Amino acid sequence: MYNLDMEKVRAIVSEIVGKRTVDTIAYVGCGASKADLYPAKYFLTNVAKKLRAAHYTANEFVNDTPDWLGEHSVIITASLGGTTPETVKANEIAKSAGAAVVSLTHTQDSPLDKSSDYTILHGFGESYATMQHKMGYALALAVEFLQQTEGYGKYDHMIDGLNRVFEASDRAAASCRGQAKLFAEKYKDAPVIYVMSSGASAEVAYSTSICLMMEMQWMNSGSFHTGEFFHGPFEIVDKDVPFILLMNDGKTRPVDARALTFLHRFDALTTVVDTKDYSLGSVVPADVITYFNPIFHSAVFRVFAEELAEARRHPLSLRRYMWKLDY
Amino acid sequence: MYNLDMEKVRAIVSEIVGKRTVDTIAYVGCGASKADLYPAKYFLTNVAKKLRAAHYTANEFVNDTPDWLGEHSVIITASLGGTTPETVKANEIAKSAGAAVVSLTHTQDSPLDKSSDYTILHGFGESYATMQHKMGYALALAVEFLQQTEGYGKYDHMIDGLNRVFEASDRAAASCRGQAKLFAEKYKDAPVIYVMSSGASAEVAYSTSICLMMEMQWMNSGSFHTGEFFHGPFEIVDKDVPFILLMNDGKTRPVDARALTFLHRFDALTTVVDTKDYSLGSVVPADVITYFNPIFHSAVFRVFAEELAEARRHPLSLRRYMWKLDY
Repeated sequence: MYNLDMEKVRAIVSEIVGKRTVDTIAYVGCGASKADLYPAKYFLTNVAKKLRAAHYTANEFVNDTPDWLGEHSVIITASLGGTTPETVKANEIAKSAGAAVVSLTHTQDSPLDKSSDYTILHGFGESYATMQHKMGYALALAVEFLQQTEGYGKYDHMIDGLNRVFEASDRAAASCRGQAKLFAEKYKDAPVIYVMSSGASAEVAYSTSICLMMEMQWMNSGSFHTGEFFHGPFEIVDKDVPFILLMNDGKTRPVDARALTFLHRFDALTTVVDTKDYSLGSVVPADVITYFNPIFHSAVFRVFAEELAEARRHPLSLRRYMWKLDY
Repeated sequence: MYNLDMEKVRAIVSEIVGKRTVDTIAYVGCGASKADLYPAKYFLTNVAKKLRAAHYTANEFVNDTPDWLGEHSVIITASLGGTTPETVKANEIAKSAGAAVVSLTHTQDSPLDKSSDYTILHGFGESYATMQHKMGYALALAVEFLQQTEGYGKYDHMIDGLNRVFEASDRAAASCRGQAKLFAEKYKDAPVIYVMSSGASAEVAYSTSICLMMEMQWMNSGSFHTGEFFHGPFEIVDKDVPFILLMNDGKTRPVDARALTFLHRFDALTTVVDTKDYSLGSVVPADVITYFNPIFHSAVFRVFAEELAEARRHPLSLRRYMWKLDY
C-alpha cells in the first residue's frame, strides 16, 4: 500500500541496461513534476562516478535539445495527468533520437503513457505517502540505474530507506495538523511569503513557492537555496517578512542552520519544518538520510498548504487560467 | 580593453589537461557569482558528449561534497572580492581532494586567489562590458576545456562570439538608458516584481531577482524559468503584478515567446529586455547565439537597476546586514 513496486523498477532498469550502455540519465518535467524529479537528479549528481545526470523543464529540452541525446541516454519524464504537452513532446523527441524513455504518471493510457517505452503508474491522492510516489520512483530509478551500471556502495541502505520512508512520511503528515493550523492562521493574510531549503529538498522549496503559494493560493512568493540566503535574499529580512525553512537532517543541515540562526537573531517571522522533529533519522540509514528529506518535507508541507487553503477559504484546486483556457 | 585574455584561458586549460584526464567540471560560487557561472554550465550540459558538468552554491559543495571529487575533476570558483568564506573553503576541499582549481576574482592576493591553482583576475567596474567578464571567463573556460578534451565542432564560432560580444554588450547598455528610466519611474513603488528567462539566461533572471531587487533594493521578488511559468507562477498574473522578461534570441526564444503572449493577452505589467532589440544576432554566430544572451541581458539590466536605484533614492550599494556584521 505504502511502498513502491521495486520489482518493476528493477525489471525496467535491467531491460534497458541489457540492451545498451547507458552514459546519461536526464529527468524532464514541468512545475511540481519537474521539482519531484530533483531529488533523483541531486542523488546522481552527487554520488555517480561515471553516469551523467541532467534535469530540464520540458519546454527547454524540447526547444534546446541537448547534443548528446541518443541511444546511450535514458530520459525519465513525469506528468501527473500524463497530458502536459511539452513533456509528451519530450518523450517523442527522446524516442526518435534512440533514447530509452521511462515515464511516471498517475494516468494509464494518457498521452505520456502512450509515448514512453516504459511507464510506471504511481499513486497520488490515496494518502500523503502515495503523493510522494512520483518523487520516490524517480529516486528509485536513479538508485537502480547507478547500481546496475557502475555499482553503488550504499545501495542496500538506499533500498532500506525506500522501503521505510513512505509509511513514515504518512505518519509525519498525520502528526503535524495542529502546527499547520497555527501556521495558516498566522500567515493567511501575508502579502508575500518566502520558502527555502537545501540539498535534495531545494526544489521542494521551489515547488512550495511556485505551486502551493503562487498557483494554488495566488499569494506572492519567492524561493531560494539556504546557501544562497546570505548572498542576496537576506537583505529583505525584516520583522514583517515571513520565511518558511524546510530544514534537512543530513549533510546540508549546517547550511540550513546558519540561515535559521540569522532569522532568529533578527526576530524574523519564521516557520520551520524540520525533518528531525519528525524523526526521519529513526526511519532511514544515517549515511543516506540526505536523499530522503524531500519525501518528508513534501508530505508534511502538503498539510500546511491544506490548512492555509482552509483558513483563506481558497481551495487548492481553484484556478484562474489552468483548465479554463488554452495557452 | 573589452576582450578576455583568451591566451591565458588556453594556457591554463592546456596545462591542466596535459597533467590529467578531466572527466568532470564543476562550477562553484555564491549569489551573483554563482549565477554568473550558470551560462558556462548550461553550455557544457547541453553540448558535451562525455564531460560531466555540475553547478553548486559553495556551502552545499562544502557540506555535501560530491563522491566523485578527485584528480579527474576541475573546480572553477568565482568571488568578486575573493573573500567569500564558503567559496574559499570550496577551493581548499577541492585541492586537498586532488582536483585542479581555477578561480575567477577581481582581487589579486585575495583568499580565493591564494587558495586556487590558477587564478584569472577579471575586470569589473571599468565598463558594462567588464562587469560581464566573470561570466565570460567561466564560459571561455568551458569552451576551451571542451575543445581540448573531446573537441567541439562549433569551437571557432564560440571564439568569434567571445571576441565580439563584450564591446557590443557595452553599446547595448549605453543605448538603453531611456527605457531604463521609464521602467524605473513606473515600478519604483511596486510591492513585488517577478523576473523570468530561459536557456543560458535562466540565472540572470535569478540574480536579477535575489541580488538587484532583494539585496540591493529590498524589494520583494521571485524568479522562475519561462518554461515553468505555465506550471504554477502564471496563476499570479493580474493587472497589478509586474513581470520582467529577459527574452532570448536563439533556441529557447519560443519558450519565452509563449510566456510573453500570455502576459500580453491578460494586459499584465510587462517589461521586456529582448536581446534581439539590441541586435545580438548581428554580433555573434547564429548557431551559438543561445550562449551569449546572458552577457547582453546582464549588461543591459544593470542600467535598469541603476535607474531603479536612482528613482527610489536607494543606492545599489546600500545594505542592512552585509559588510555590517558577522553571520
